[in-house]
Amino acid sequence: MTNRYDDVRQVADSLNVDAVALVPGPNFTRSMGQAFMSHERPFLVVIPAKGEPAAIVPNLELGSWELVNFEGAVFDWRDQDGYQHAFEAFAKHMPLKSLAVEGQVMRVFVHHALKAAMPDLTIVDAEKEISGLRLLKTTDDIKSLQAAIDISERALERVLKAIRIGQTETEIEQNLVQALFAEGADEMAFGPIVAAGDGSARPHAHARPDYRVKAGDPLLFDFGARKHGFAADITRTVFVGHATDEGREVYQTVLAANEVGNAITRPGITAHDIDDAVTSVMEASPYSDRIRTKTGHGLGRDVHEAPYIMRGNHQVMQAGMVFTNEPGLYEIGNFGVRIEDDVLVTADGCRCLTSFPKELTIVGAN
Amino acid sequence: MTNRYDDVRQVADSLNVDAVALVPGPNFTRSMGQAFMSHERPFLVVIPAKGEPAAIVPNLELGSWELVNFEGAVFDWRDQDGYQHAFEAFAKHMPLKSLAVEGQVMRVFVHHALKAAMPDLTIVDAEKEISGLRLLKTTDDIKSLQAAIDISERALERVLKAIRIGQTETEIEQNLVQALFAEGADEMAFGPIVAAGDGSARPHAHARPDYRVKAGDPLLFDFGARKHGFAADITRTVFVGHATDEGREVYQTVLAANEVGNAITRPGITAHDIDDAVTSVMEASPYSDRIRTKTGHGLGRDVHEAPYIMRGNHQVMQAGMVFTNEPGLYEIGNFGVRIEDDVLVTADGCRCLTSFPKELTIVGAN
Repeated sequence: MTNRYDDVRQVADSLNVDAVALVPGPNFTRSMGQAFMSHERPFLVVIPAKGEPAAIVPNLELGSWELVNFEGAVFDWRDQDGYQHAFEAFAKHMPLKSLAVEGQVMRVFVHHALKAAMPDLTIVDAEKEISGLRLLKTTDDIKSLQAAIDISERALERVLKAIRIGQTETEIEQNLVQALFAEGADEMAFGPIVAAGDGSARPHAHARPDYRVKAGDPLLFDFGARKHGFAADITRTVFVGHATDEGREVYQTVLAANEVGNAITRPGITAHDIDDAVTSVMEASPYSDRIRTKTGHGLGRDVHEAPYIMRGNHQVMQAGMVFTNEPGLYEIGNFGVRIEDDVLVTADGCRCLTSFPKELTIVGAN
Repeated sequence: MTNRYDDVRQVADSLNVDAVALVPGPNFTRSMGQAFMSHERPFLVVIPAKGEPAAIVPNLELGSWELVNFEGAVFDWRDQDGYQHAFEAFAKHMPLKSLAVEGQVMRVFVHHALKAAMPDLTIVDAEKEISGLRLLKTTDDIKSLQAAIDISERALERVLKAIRIGQTETEIEQNLVQALFAEGADEMAFGPIVAAGDGSARPHAHARPDYRVKAGDPLLFDFGARKHGFAADITRTVFVGHATDEGREVYQTVLAANEVGNAITRPGITAHDIDDAVTSVMEASPYSDRIRTKTGHGLGRDVHEAPYIMRGNHQVMQAGMVFTNEPGLYEIGNFGVRIEDDVLVTADGCRCLTSFPKELTIVGAN
């Protein structure tokens, strides 16, 4: 009979560690079936290679914790008493020599509490192996991702229709956010990026309340809804009023790179191969000095997860993986263009889950 | 002449460490004047007790980084090359023996990258001291907090008017989220809690798509807008159709506790004193076994920050501190009530920044 911890136990086995710890976040949600917040409170489940799991749970979460139907010992702690005694009691219950943790999720104060309770404990960063369990999406996962993407695309359609020269980046961002929720988003997958003109050259720009879009501006949207726990992540760059010659050339270069990525993706190819093919298109252009990022990243419960689509990552792509194909060209002080699709690897190639048009689009031409 | 790092340098001095590291999050935003994301990419500023700061910056952030007008050396790294060489170069540039970090913000993979580059480095969790620099809010901070609170209260007013028996928790949550953005929120401060009936007994409940509110249900809202980087956090519990006798008694107990907290708050009192006074009201009631949480937490750029309002925390309250006063009583399987205000300590007492009515309210009585 399968058990919800089987795959996590296999990680412990393969790393030759005594146990794996999960803290609230995407892996925890997937294994436990419930999402939790953590904030200033340590909260973790420890799954040994063999035997029952145990958990350290903030007392105020016990009401939600019953929904987990947990099998093992629970060491709860109240704010007034602090958490260290729960770590001591846990250490007595499950003495460990080595523990694999999610290095990109667990914070230093939990690491320190573990070391204080078990000074000889070796803590191994197993982010790659633990989050690797989410590499292959289930049919349900893909349904949720598609729902998040569909909501996002309907929202973008609304927003583009309403763009007028003279609107600020912030106004456009507000329209986008409202459209996302009106279309059914549970949450935003991340703070959206709405960046025009020179702002578009910053891959993670913030919308400016004092920048009004003007004719000739590129206008970049990078955003996504979250639905049923899964995150969309889509980028389109449009032009306001008209596109300059330089804008058109850069746009067509990025689009060609993006299209190569979608065209070559199939099981058996590596993440390196995809980034190499996509990036090579831009390297062969007159704009090669504007390349700043890898091609993309995995997408699922987390907005950024494995597989990272970059040179040097020889991860073999398999049916069920989802990643972003998001080449871009950025010149600081001038402008940037990025086009991002969410791509599912299928048995015989790939399916682009995003379907928003990619031909060069002019908006706000009133 | 004051320098933006003076207060951080003082933390390094007082802890007798060589330097303080800040990673993207509220302290970083406050000191650097710009907010950044980090995701899978290490990103940190290191401020030594004496001398120029240095930073490890993902290459794709350099466009945004120029807005920081950084004074020191920058070690950037590209996805394709990995980040460890940037840590090595940093270590050569600024050899450190000890480093204070934000234990609740920095993640383990950054801790490990630091230790790999500087094996003898002592890493000290100075969350309390570093985040302590945000204890006293400026006039601008309070303006932003008040704006976030006002938006939140207007949104709640809209939502309560629209409640009808038979709506699901999820429908009501969607209305709340849309109202928050319609009223001008930049973001949500956190995933809102909308919990009726037995769900209200879970302090961090998730809205259920299959739970329809019915007459006699308590209905708990815990949510907040974020505006100009500051987070509101407000809870009100209303009753649908009518309130049961038990519901009324529990409600009045929680309200009395909340009111004591607001009444006694003034400079010179401690966080312990406030929690003790508030909790004592509930302990003296027939519902003392339903107490599960401390009275509250500080509020500012972060939703949960110092000062934590709990017994044993002898932090002296000072004018300029803002905290949540949120007593609650929760019986798992039955129901819960929580009432939460955001309170500013002033020179001569306190000012409640939240002003939404707290008398027992019946909604949805169509």
